[in-house]
Amino acid sequence: MTLIEFFDYASVFIFALTGALVASRAQLDVVGFAFVASLTAVGGGTLRDVLLDRNPVFWVGEPSFIGVAVAAAVLVFFTAHLFESRLTVLTWLDACALAVAVAAGTGVALELGHHAAIVLLMGVATGCFGGLMRDVVCNEVPLVLKQGELYVTAAFAGAASAIIAGSLVSEGWALLICAGVTFTLRAGSLIFGWRLPVYKSRPPRR
Amino acid sequence: MTLIEFFDYASVFIFALTGALVASRAQLDVVGFAFVASLTAVGGGTLRDVLLDRNPVFWVGEPSFIGVAVAAAVLVFFTAHLFESRLTVLTWLDACALAVAVAAGTGVALELGHHAAIVLLMGVATGCFGGLMRDVVCNEVPLVLKQGELYVTAAFAGAASAIIAGSLVSEGWALLICAGVTFTLRAGSLIFGWRLPVYKSRPPRR
Amino acid sequence: MTLIEFFDYASVFIFALTGALVASRAQLDVVGFAFVASLTAVGGGTLRDVLLDRNPVFWVGEPSFIGVAVAAAVLVFFTAHLFESRLTVLTWLDACALAVAVAAGTGVALELGHHAAIVLLMGVATGCFGGLMRDVVCNEVPLVLKQGELYVTAAFAGAASAIIAGSLVSEGWALLICAGVTFTLRAGSLIFGWRLPVYKSRPPRR
Repeated sequence: MTLIEFFDYASVFIFALTGALVASRAQLDVVGFAFVASLTAVGGGTLRDVLLDRNPVFWVGEPSFIGVAVAAAVLVFFTAHLFESRLTVLTWLDACALAVAVAAGTGVALELGHHAAIVLLMGVATGCFGGLMRDVVCNEVPLVLKQGELYVTAAFAGAASAIIAGSLVSEGWALLICAGVTFTLRAGSLIFGWRLPVYKSRPPRR
Repeated sequence: MTLIEFFDYASVFIFALTGALVASRAQLDVVGFAFVASLTAVGGGTLRDVLLDRNPVFWVGEPSFIGVAVAAAVLVFFTAHLFESRLTVLTWLDACALAVAVAAGTGVALELGHHAAIVLLMGVATGCFGGLMRDVVCNEVPLVLKQGELYVTAAFAGAASAIIAGSLVSEGWALLICAGVTFTLRAGSLIFGWRLPVYKSRPPRR
Repeated sequence: MTLIEFFDYASVFIFALTGALVASRAQLDVVGFAFVASLTAVGGGTLRDVLLDRNPVFWVGEPSFIGVAVAAAVLVFFTAHLFESRLTVLTWLDACALAVAVAAGTGVALELGHHAAIVLLMGVATGCFGGLMRDVVCNEVPLVLKQGELYVTAAFAGAASAIIAGSLVSEGWALLICAGVTFTLRAGSLIFGWRLPVYKSRPPRR
């Protein structure tokens, strides 16, 4: 298994866990859990593959990805009630999934030799899109747009660090650095409130 | 016309009727009706074709599908006021559309010789995605996620029965069985309240 | 630069401005501005390219489109507070973006020699989809579905006029006419209240 495949599997599994947790908040049945989990798990990577015209889409060529997502959904269905605060678990799992998914997206685009701007965007899109679909479909406020938290920014910084590191160290290390930077920024934002200044509308003078 | 084409036309027509009924609830003009109807009608099949890299997408290669969707929209625009309960009509038409769309999606994936897991997913995605887009775009609560009803589960069981039946009888019969199973489960859920146990958060014991 | 490229760049820039304005209403940080702006800017054209199987997708082949969208986002981030009524600015910029995007979508489909129904749909989809994604993701009521305004209808009429004009004058003029018709109808709807009759549910007699 290549490192990119490892990141793909890890992001599918962890994103599927977050999808199933959102499904538990919507009180769906077990097939509903599997549906939302699969949508979340493969959403970002599917967008990446369709945009870069990789054929077949990663999970169509290797259906075991779907098995991983369904297993995660079933796991959550039977254990979610054990957690006191599902929202906290969800937020942190989402942070892990974001980190590995950004690395997976960045890695694929780097390997295909795309322009740095495309590599950046693929990292951000692969990382953010699955969670965005999960939240839009389930009518939650998208985590990706939550005010005053680093999310897209963390993904962006991670992808950027992979591009910079890619010219200094091997691709494997670059992707590990990418995941590390993304997770660190997202975690710092959740724990310490790190953030960029947000836009504030000021009342026009006079 | 092959059986798969028949299912494609039928799902386009019936999903277009449901899209137009949702447009009537949002009080759009006739072009808005045609827009929502087309989006609903071709959404699921388009996702299937993009994911399986079928070129061209079914309605790009055969524009009469769009004509069918627009005709359905115009029909509803001028007759929807005749129905007393548009929501009931909508729910039942959606059940019919789901059944034929699952058969259309399953049939295409079977014909292309995909793995059983992919066939299952294509059946579910083709069946559920058009209605999901309709509801997300029009800000309705997605029927697909309505708590305590079989919807994704009906699609899943239909696709699964097509795979099993496909090894016993001809493909045509397998697809008819698929549509029948899907519709029966969905209808049973609507009439008799058939359902799977849903996830209930239990307060943690002390 | 061909005329179609010009329309692509113009629609990317203006749609990015509208995306950034919506981001300012959601009080995001500058990376969030760039994310929503890029999504809005390339959404419609990406859908067009994926559906018509144009490879690569326009901005993957030419990353400067992303630079244009990011520049627009940064511009809005630092200047949006200067406008008294951001909603008015947003609505009018969206009308301009709609007009040029419809022309870009129509032009590409015409050039590829597609059936008139597909040309119409590509014009409408390219024009409407970016703004629709922007509004769905940011939880705004989609402009495209706002009751009693010409929006999809304007796009539709513009694309239709391009097809008719295309048989009489050169393609360049046809696309300019397309943009003009779309903008005129949308603007007339905003200023003078032009509209088509909308569907009204009537209480059934007795």
